[in-house]
Amino acid sequence: MKKLINHVDSLLAESLDGFAAAHADIVTLGNEREFVRRRLTRPGKVAVISGGGSGHEPLHAGFVGHGMLDAACPGQVFTSPTPNQMLAAAESVDTGAGVLFIVKNYSGDMMNFQMAAEMLDRDNATVIVNDDVAVENSTYTTGRRGVAGTLIVEKIVGAAAERGDNLAALKALGDAVNKATASMGVALTSCTVPAAGKPTFQIGADEMEMGVGIHGEPGRRRVKLTSADEIAAELTGAILKDLSLARGQQAILLVNGFGGTPMLELYLMVTAALKVLRGAGVEVVRHLTGSYVTSLEMAGCSITVTAVDAPLLALWDAPVHTAALRWGM
Amino acid sequence: MKKLINHVDSLLAESLDGFAAAHADIVTLGNEREFVRRRLTRPGKVAVISGGGSGHEPLHAGFVGHGMLDAACPGQVFTSPTPNQMLAAAESVDTGAGVLFIVKNYSGDMMNFQMAAEMLDRDNATVIVNDDVAVENSTYTTGRRGVAGTLIVEKIVGAAAERGDNLAALKALGDAVNKATASMGVALTSCTVPAAGKPTFQIGADEMEMGVGIHGEPGRRRVKLTSADEIAAELTGAILKDLSLARGQQAILLVNGFGGTPMLELYLMVTAALKVLRGAGVEVVRHLTGSYVTSLEMAGCSITVTAVDAPLLALWDAPVHTAALRWGM
Repeated sequence: MKKLINHVDSLLAESLDGFAAAHADIVTLGNEREFVRRRLTRPGKVAVISGGGSGHEPLHAGFVGHGMLDAACPGQVFTSPTPNQMLAAAESVDTGAGVLFIVKNYSGDMMNFQMAAEMLDRDNATVIVNDDVAVENSTYTTGRRGVAGTLIVEKIVGAAAERGDNLAALKALGDAVNKATASMGVALTSCTVPAAGKPTFQIGADEMEMGVGIHGEPGRRRVKLTSADEIAAELTGAILKDLSLARGQQAILLVNGFGGTPMLELYLMVTAALKVLRGAGVEVVRHLTGSYVTSLEMAGCSITVTAVDAPLLALWDAPVHTAALRWGM
Repeated sequence: MKKLINHVDSLLAESLDGFAAAHADIVTLGNEREFVRRRLTRPGKVAVISGGGSGHEPLHAGFVGHGMLDAACPGQVFTSPTPNQMLAAAESVDTGAGVLFIVKNYSGDMMNFQMAAEMLDRDNATVIVNDDVAVENSTYTTGRRGVAGTLIVEKIVGAAAERGDNLAALKALGDAVNKATASMGVALTSCTVPAAGKPTFQIGADEMEMGVGIHGEPGRRRVKLTSADEIAAELTGAILKDLSLARGQQAILLVNGFGGTPMLELYLMVTAALKVLRGAGVEVVRHLTGSYVTSLEMAGCSITVTAVDAPLLALWDAPVHTAALRWGM
């Protein structure tokens, strides 16, 4: 295993310390590093909290800040954070307007966020993200997995929280954005979880895992590597089939790298995905391209499409100031 | 070779098309994709142009836009752009105030930018970036290599151009920032140039290349992989030795990933580098952490330190709106 670390046990703490130092204008850490929270909260604003296993950076801590999350709870690599982390985060950032949890649909996260929600003596609601159309049920889920579309839910819901929407409205909005969002990914290589010390899966030099999950878990099938155009056609085709978009529908396109794929290839995938979307009459009105929801150093990418109308687009465009997404301020 | 591409020959064109589509609010391409230019130029402002081989994305095209570059000329992967590309870019974005070229010190780039400068029938000057302290002379250079510090030169000079500094002032500023900047990197794996189809270099499962260049070219020595703290101590130590900073000196710290290293590790390297810098009495007042000057999918990172005073810091903080760096607007 080749990684820039000192000890596997201290990796997360040392990384969080670096994150907090590099973005001290935006975030602070909980006393025991249970959460990353925005420096300033605003009374009357619903607190939006997410979290999950580490190893998907910049998700979620990179999205803490004005216009997006109030706090993120980092678990160990690919391991759910504990209910205590979520409770500590909620105590820290709730100003009385309640707490909205945004949770990716994985069994560990679901169980722990649900426990936190039940234990929490504050108004709360939960949005479950399950945008991955690759497989129904999977290694770590009942039902579909939550993947890169999570960042789109976090951005849009975060903007609505910032303008003052109440808890019920944010819950409904989050559910609606999740429903309007679909993703699918492909892996060319495995990743290596530090505590495991060896690759999560073996894959041939000419193979790819079509429909891979963001922990390197299996997708639809293992096949020979094909061209970017063919890959984009399959990923985008599955997304379009799921969303059933009308011609003329406006959309956000997120081409997301899993960590080990260069920008040169991600932008090429934008070209490839646009061919398919244009062919289907979908008008991409906003782009996001980069490694935002990663699987450590796994090579590959996912494509995410979110159908938007003018109100959703305005929330997407609203100012955001986080470590990983920043515009309008 | 596992890459998301269609054909090696069309890789760059398809990637540039995706880049231009994804950032159509900021950039346009030359008619024959000779350059990426900002959509809007402003009469009276010196045009700042850079460029170099592709494969280092987001450098340079990702830094085209308000407050930074006016145009970037992309060569094939790890290959200098041609003088004709630079001339076409200059014709496109110079509004009469002259052209400043920012060039990384590699023999191919130096020769081609120099030819362009000589052929160009407009006022021009050139800033040469050679921030890499790892080696004097190298595979592709006479003298030190230009690496991740280039983005700091481009940001600060770009901000000064935006406020209206003239060509001579920008040339002097660029030289001063280059002199105040030092970098050094380490590679854990090789990258694979698409046209070559195989890794640029072979490296053992327990080895690292200390002082590696951004094309995977050799550095100081091949040694056993050590801890992040030891690596940071060597990289940062070499930088401090080169810059001879006084205690109390303020600085920008850039921890730059080469493409295949996760953010989790880069932020850990921030923690590791800060220990060394604090020990030397250097006060890091601004951070940038991420994969900004890459070597395709190479695993590893570089550390860059730029000594700053209040005027340089104000230029660093000035608004910027590019694909890869955006703040204040």
